[in-house]
Amino acid sequence: MKDIKESQIDSIEKLYVAQPFLPDLNRVVEMLKSIWESKILTNEGPLHNQLEDELRTYLKVPVAKLYASGTTALLCALRSFDLPEGAEIITTPLTFAATPHAISFCGYKPVFADVLEDSLTIDPASVELAVTERTAAVLGVHVYSTICDTPKLGRVCQEHDLKLIFDAAHAFGASVDGTPVGMLGDATIFSLHATKIYHTLEGGIITTPHEDLAERLRLVRNFGIVDEATVTEIGINGKMNEFSAAIGLLNLPLVAAEREVRKSLRGRYDAIIADQPGLRRQIHQPKVEHSQQYYLMIVDPETFGRTRDQIYDALKERGVYARRYFWPTCNDYKAYEKYPVYSTLEQPVVEKVKNQLLCLPFHSGVKDFHVDIIADVLHNRTG
Amino acid sequence: MKDIKESQIDSIEKLYVAQPFLPDLNRVVEMLKSIWESKILTNEGPLHNQLEDELRTYLKVPVAKLYASGTTALLCALRSFDLPEGAEIITTPLTFAATPHAISFCGYKPVFADVLEDSLTIDPASVELAVTERTAAVLGVHVYSTICDTPKLGRVCQEHDLKLIFDAAHAFGASVDGTPVGMLGDATIFSLHATKIYHTLEGGIITTPHEDLAERLRLVRNFGIVDEATVTEIGINGKMNEFSAAIGLLNLPLVAAEREVRKSLRGRYDAIIADQPGLRRQIHQPKVEHSQQYYLMIVDPETFGRTRDQIYDALKERGVYARRYFWPTCNDYKAYEKYPVYSTLEQPVVEKVKNQLLCLPFHSGVKDFHVDIIADVLHNRTG
Repeated sequence: MKDIKESQIDSIEKLYVAQPFLPDLNRVVEMLKSIWESKILTNEGPLHNQLEDELRTYLKVPVAKLYASGTTALLCALRSFDLPEGAEIITTPLTFAATPHAISFCGYKPVFADVLEDSLTIDPASVELAVTERTAAVLGVHVYSTICDTPKLGRVCQEHDLKLIFDAAHAFGASVDGTPVGMLGDATIFSLHATKIYHTLEGGIITTPHEDLAERLRLVRNFGIVDEATVTEIGINGKMNEFSAAIGLLNLPLVAAEREVRKSLRGRYDAIIADQPGLRRQIHQPKVEHSQQYYLMIVDPETFGRTRDQIYDALKERGVYARRYFWPTCNDYKAYEKYPVYSTLEQPVVEKVKNQLLCLPFHSGVKDFHVDIIADVLHNRTG
Repeated sequence: MKDIKESQIDSIEKLYVAQPFLPDLNRVVEMLKSIWESKILTNEGPLHNQLEDELRTYLKVPVAKLYASGTTALLCALRSFDLPEGAEIITTPLTFAATPHAISFCGYKPVFADVLEDSLTIDPASVELAVTERTAAVLGVHVYSTICDTPKLGRVCQEHDLKLIFDAAHAFGASVDGTPVGMLGDATIFSLHATKIYHTLEGGIITTPHEDLAERLRLVRNFGIVDEATVTEIGINGKMNEFSAAIGLLNLPLVAAEREVRKSLRGRYDAIIADQPGLRRQIHQPKVEHSQQYYLMIVDPETFGRTRDQIYDALKERGVYARRYFWPTCNDYKAYEKYPVYSTLEQPVVEKVKNQLLCLPFHSGVKDFHVDIIADVLHNRTG
């Protein structure tokens, strides 16, 4: 039996959670010709600078700086705040590895605080419990484009004199009550990785409302070099090259259409889940304009009668590769296995939900028959 | 007068120390088509893996791993050795900012040792003076493709149980007595930046003779992710994307010809300098096969009658942009201005030579009339 099933899977084109969208190749070739003519391949070239200008406008922020990757942006942001050596930075364990690893990589220490049950974003009350005299910053994550409780986090940070930084890898173009997500906190980091709704193959952005931080954010990605004779900061090579910038320029006008496709797909997934006790969609934040990066479903196995992993396996058998995202959570990683999760509850929320989260394929490559397969599996009309 | 001179400069096409070479655009477009078909844009894709295979063969090493930049490679190498928190790493101040900054960025402390008068590479006896109980590694630089005194450095490192790492940003493809440069020490880092003799727009490589380090070097560039369920290392996103890998595949067969052009140019520069008291070319290491990354000239102002900066300015007036490389040295940077340079001499070598070093334009874009201008300026036949 197993062999037959496996060969069936192989015959179907697999559908993944994310699929990179690509601009028209002819337009890319035109851009390449201009690069070949100028012979400027990197080092804040003309396409790079044009993209920074366009992103500042698109994201409605005074400062938007480009980086080679989202993680590079995160490293550069953390390094731009003169945090004391070995400082503790409070973050959520319900995030991609990049978040705590960037903290550790810089020589700081990630400290995990629990998430809120409804939004799955970092819990301000748990953050409060995790603060020590070595705490220097809070790094919140707008996970699945659900926006953190920024007013409460802001108050905690103000009280304890902490920097407030956001990882918005999932929230490109999102806003709250008209405020662009890139204006929240002291700095916000976006990922432009190939799997993101807007990408530059690999890439990242830092935005900040603090205009006086702009020069430093630029210097830290270019070795702190002010001019031939002057090096003022500790920096690395965090620069985006001209080819990635070209892809970024061509992709930016395509985001709106992709977002509309996903909005409509979200409606269809919502409808499939709506009548299923034990399945919950991501919280709806009425004031938030959503990035449409992911579609998250939360499975309560007791009520639903099947576990998240059973659904995951059933979808996989039919060629639909959902993603158990995020599982494991960061506190399960070997490097952090002895790190507690500070929580106001005896059993942290994160320990329960990590086994209930499933992201469904969410992009313009999802066809009607894929949606039908997903409905079929969730409505348990299969084998 | 000044205005006339400036307008003359503007009318000449400027010649720089480095000029990126580019593969045939049609071949690039063919590669792009394959990327557009596969939709694999990054994450250790097929072109990336092919390039790693080819580089392992080219560099004659058992392990060669690709990274998004030379600095990213350096960060990842430093993070792969479990050095204690806040460890001291002894390095040379006569290097590009990337070297000490990568150390600092990881939360370690760079400690500067003087260079040898002849080779300008790190002085093993000065390294010995700089060792403390917090020292964890020595990071030598094969500066201008001049190879460090690896036997002596090896002995110092063995005696004090230190890792020996090399920055070979200038030494792609070099070898010593038949031993590839990438086999020296515990790890060697190459830069594939656009200005290098072999480039991938931006990129880097780590090589090591230790085969058991291969998996770790791979994991540290991909968040330490072993599989969906297992994260074993603290890592970042250090991955090279498929477009850079494509450029790398197309450029690799072109290096040999570029190297031949530069070898011949080196001969011509050597001849220009040979009869000039006070001008010295880079030391000739008879057993070293040279990378041909840079042409370095050392100016003794007392004997020559003009300073390095006077030559630099005179060349610049005629459209030839030489580079005072490395000046300032890293111990002059704001971040390190209080850091001593450990030296066996009262006045460190580096403090004198940094004002005497000049790299001449060195690539296949240098034409006969450029060489004539340089000869003219050095032989002082101009106004």
